[in-house]
Parts: sequence; C-alpha cells; structure tokens
Amino acid sequence: MFDYLMHHRIQMWLEQAAEELQSALNRDLIVEEKKDASDLVTEMDKNTEKFLVGKIQHYYPDHKIIGEEGMTGEKVTDVSGMVWVIDPIDGTLNFVKQKNNFGIMVGLFYDGQPVAGYIYDVMNDHLFTGIVGEGAYLNNKPIELEQYQAINQSLVMGNVGMFIENHMNTQAIFKEALGARSLGSAALEVISVIRGEASIYISHGLSPWDFAAGYAICHALDMKVTTLDNQPLNILERSSVIFAHKNVHQEAINLLNPTE
Amino acid sequence: MFDYLMHHRIQMWLEQAAEELQSALNRDLIVEEKKDASDLVTEMDKNTEKFLVGKIQHYYPDHKIIGEEGMTGEKVTDVSGMVWVIDPIDGTLNFVKQKNNFGIMVGLFYDGQPVAGYIYDVMNDHLFTGIVGEGAYLNNKPIELEQYQAINQSLVMGNVGMFIENHMNTQAIFKEALGARSLGSAALEVISVIRGEASIYISHGLSPWDFAAGYAICHALDMKVTTLDNQPLNILERSSVIFAHKNVHQEAINLLNPTE
Repeated sequence: MFDYLMHHRIQMWLEQAAEELQSALNRDLIVEEKKDASDLVTEMDKNTEKFLVGKIQHYYPDHKIIGEEGMTGEKVTDVSGMVWVIDPIDGTLNFVKQKNNFGIMVGLFYDGQPVAGYIYDVMNDHLFTGIVGEGAYLNNKPIELEQYQAINQSLVMGNVGMFIENHMNTQAIFKEALGARSLGSAALEVISVIRGEASIYISHGLSPWDFAAGYAICHALDMKVTTLDNQPLNILERSSVIFAHKNVHQEAINLLNPTE
Repeated sequence: MFDYLMHHRIQMWLEQAAEELQSALNRDLIVEEKKDASDLVTEMDKNTEKFLVGKIQHYYPDHKIIGEEGMTGEKVTDVSGMVWVIDPIDGTLNFVKQKNNFGIMVGLFYDGQPVAGYIYDVMNDHLFTGIVGEGAYLNNKPIELEQYQAINQSLVMGNVGMFIENHMNTQAIFKEALGARSLGSAALEVISVIRGEASIYISHGLSPWDFAAGYAICHALDMKVTTLDNQPLNILERSSVIFAHKNVHQEAINLLNPTE
C-alpha cells in the first residue's frame, strides 16, 4: 500500500534523478534512434530508469514496475497489487534538441486504480505531486485548480500532427477552443492542465508511462481522465487519452464522438 | 541614432514594465475582446504601451513609434530615421488564461533597417537583446547560437491553426521537421529559435509589432528573416514571416514555394 515514507522516498529519488539530468545536459549525450529520427533514446533515459527501478526493487521487491525503456525485468501482465509506471524522460526529443521542456514521471497504482502521481519539470525545478484523496502540490504547495466550465473559454493542449490529421475528430476540439498549444511532452502538457493554463490535453495515442502520472495527479484534483471515446484507462495498454477539467469532459467527449 | 545610453534606458524601462505585469497577475484584470474572444486586450497592454511611449517621447521626441495598442499618436507612414516598434504584451491570450508565456517586445529600426531588438519573457525574468553588428544576449550573457544545417534535424515553431489549414504550404515544413511546437506567442516562439530549441519559426500573418523585435535579434545573430515568399520585411506592413537559422532558410523557402 501507499504510505508517506514511500512518498518521501519518491521525492528524494526524483530530486536526485533531476539533478543528474540537468548535469547531463552539459555533456555530449549518446543518442540512439528507436522507430525513427523523431523517436530517440539517450543513455540518460536508460540510466534514469535503471536508477529508479533499482530503488523500487530494493525497498519494495514485491511491487510490479512498468517502464518505457524496459529495464524493469519481467513484463507486467496483470494490475493486481502495487504497480509503478515510470517514464524516465518524457519528451526525449525536447531533451536532446531543446535541452529543456521534458519531465520525469512516476505513477503509482493499486489494483489498477491511481494512488499517487509525480511529474518533475526538470529545467524549472518544479515537482508536481498528486495523492488521491489528499490533494495535489507544486513543490509541496497545494494546487488550487480553478476548473473551466466550457471549452470555448479555454486553451487546449495537443500534438500538431494529431490536429492536422484530425485523428479521432480532434479538430472539433481545436475549433471550439480559444486556441491550441503544443509542447511536445505529455508531462508538460498535463502540467498546463493541472495549473489551469488549459482546460484539456488530448492525445490519440499514449503509452502507459505517458499517461500514468498525469492520470493520478488529475484524479487527485477531481479532474476526469478517460480514453477519447469515454472508456476507463488500462495501465497495461496504449490508448487515446483526454485529461480534462471536470466540467468540460462531457463537452469534449460529445465533440469527439458526434452521434450523427 | 542608436547608442548605449538608449540601450541602458530601454533595459531599465523593460525591467520596470515586467515587474508591473508580474504584479498585475495577482489582481483581477480588465479584459476586453477586440475581434473575438481569442483576440483580447487588457488594461495592462494599454498601460505598458503608454508607459513605454511616454518614456520614448520624453527622451527622444523626434523618433517615430509604432505600437499595437495605438497609444503612439500620429500614424507612422514612412520608415525614415529612428522608428520604435512596440508590443506591450505579446501573447495576451496566454497572459489572461495562463498567467504565463507572454513577452514584451521592442524593435528599433533606422531607415527601415533593424538596429536593436528586445524580448522580455516576463515570467522567466529572461531579457533577450540583440544589437546588430554587436551580438545577442540573454540577461547580458552572450548567446552562442549553434545554427542548424537542415530542417530534418530540428524542431519548428508555428501556430496550430496555420498548420491545420496548410496556409502558404506550411505543412511541407511540418512534414520535413522532427516535430512542431506551438506556444501562442511570437515572442516565445522567436526565443525558441534564437536559443536553438528550433531551427525556424513560421507565421502566415504577423503585424509589425509581432515581428520587429525578433527580426532585429535574429539579424544580430546572423539568422535570416523574410516573408514566406522570400521578400524583405517592411515594418509598416502586416505580412507572413519566417525567422530561420541561416543554413535552413533557403530549404524552407523551397518547401514553401515549390516550382512545379
């Protein structure tokens, strides 16, 4: 089960991991392509995941771990008990090309339900945490989210390519909103929503490590997170995701899934 | 003519204006719509322009001033002599909705040619300056720009709506690049390019106050700034604009203007 010693430890580990990433940006990075030139992995993605996995396995040997870089040992096939979901660097392309605008993300789940989430905006030294049932925090200061009531009073976050291709009718959201912003990192795009800079963040395809931490923080803030066709998320599966202020979620679902 | 007393004064004025904007975000803003709900003006746009115009008119009564909010007196119809181009808040929608991600911009021109530019990223306390023939600086520290050699090694900046509509064939740039980012503020998008976070920023329609400061800073950094059909910019006219690292400018122009 989640407890505050665990919370304390995660924060310490993330501070240490963030410091390593900051100093790595002063060295030459070893960059490899995964699928193509826009899908990169560096030694720092691997090192950071290895570091976090090592800590978790040491303190919590019976917990399961899902990680982007696959340094977690056995593949997780059921969600029972405690499951950690790790993205060591979310926005690796930004990390490499911008040396900015990336995050470390950790989501904690119990029997598939979100328990706590952590997003570290490394270059701003901003650690966002959410503990379900307790609240959400920026560097331990409570976040008081003013939730939007309508999409047309707000900005939205999403990937440029998704909007161009109109994947899953996402242009309908763009047209309704005051405007769209695109940062190239799910971590930073979720942060925009939990800070109230935007009312929703939509993506037509995220892996569990891309959405887990944000899912838990949003849950702690009484926001709504589902697939774009309004199904619950499964932390074992890649899927479309909407992170939404509570009162705009249904409006967004209606725009994305017109009945006619 | 431009001199370093002028440079000193502009920096002081911008510090003062930025401080006012930061503290205004703790109060309720008076927001008015211009064209529509996504085109806003606040009393702080007007106050900031009034403040800067007052200073310029006091110290440099024979200089011309172009400002977004039209608090500059007589309309400027020729570019001879010294012309100041002011955007008191670039990204007013972000200012209102995000309380973040906006800038103050000042461009200085002599006989229509860029002389110096200033972009203040207010919430990060980052003042970017460029003095043509001398260099560009972030908070007085020289910027050493590593210029990209090819669009396909880089990210690009641009408006989501422009890419969706494929205005002026801008999707060709999107397809060639590693990805696109969109921040909703020309100030911040130009900053991304002068920091090397992206190789180009393109827009199908900017007003003089949107491009003047960035034009001057890019010129100081030996980057290239033209219309999307490769014409020189005129600071009296709204136009399309590309801000590009020197060696990718021609590649971008070719993509935007295919000959077949």
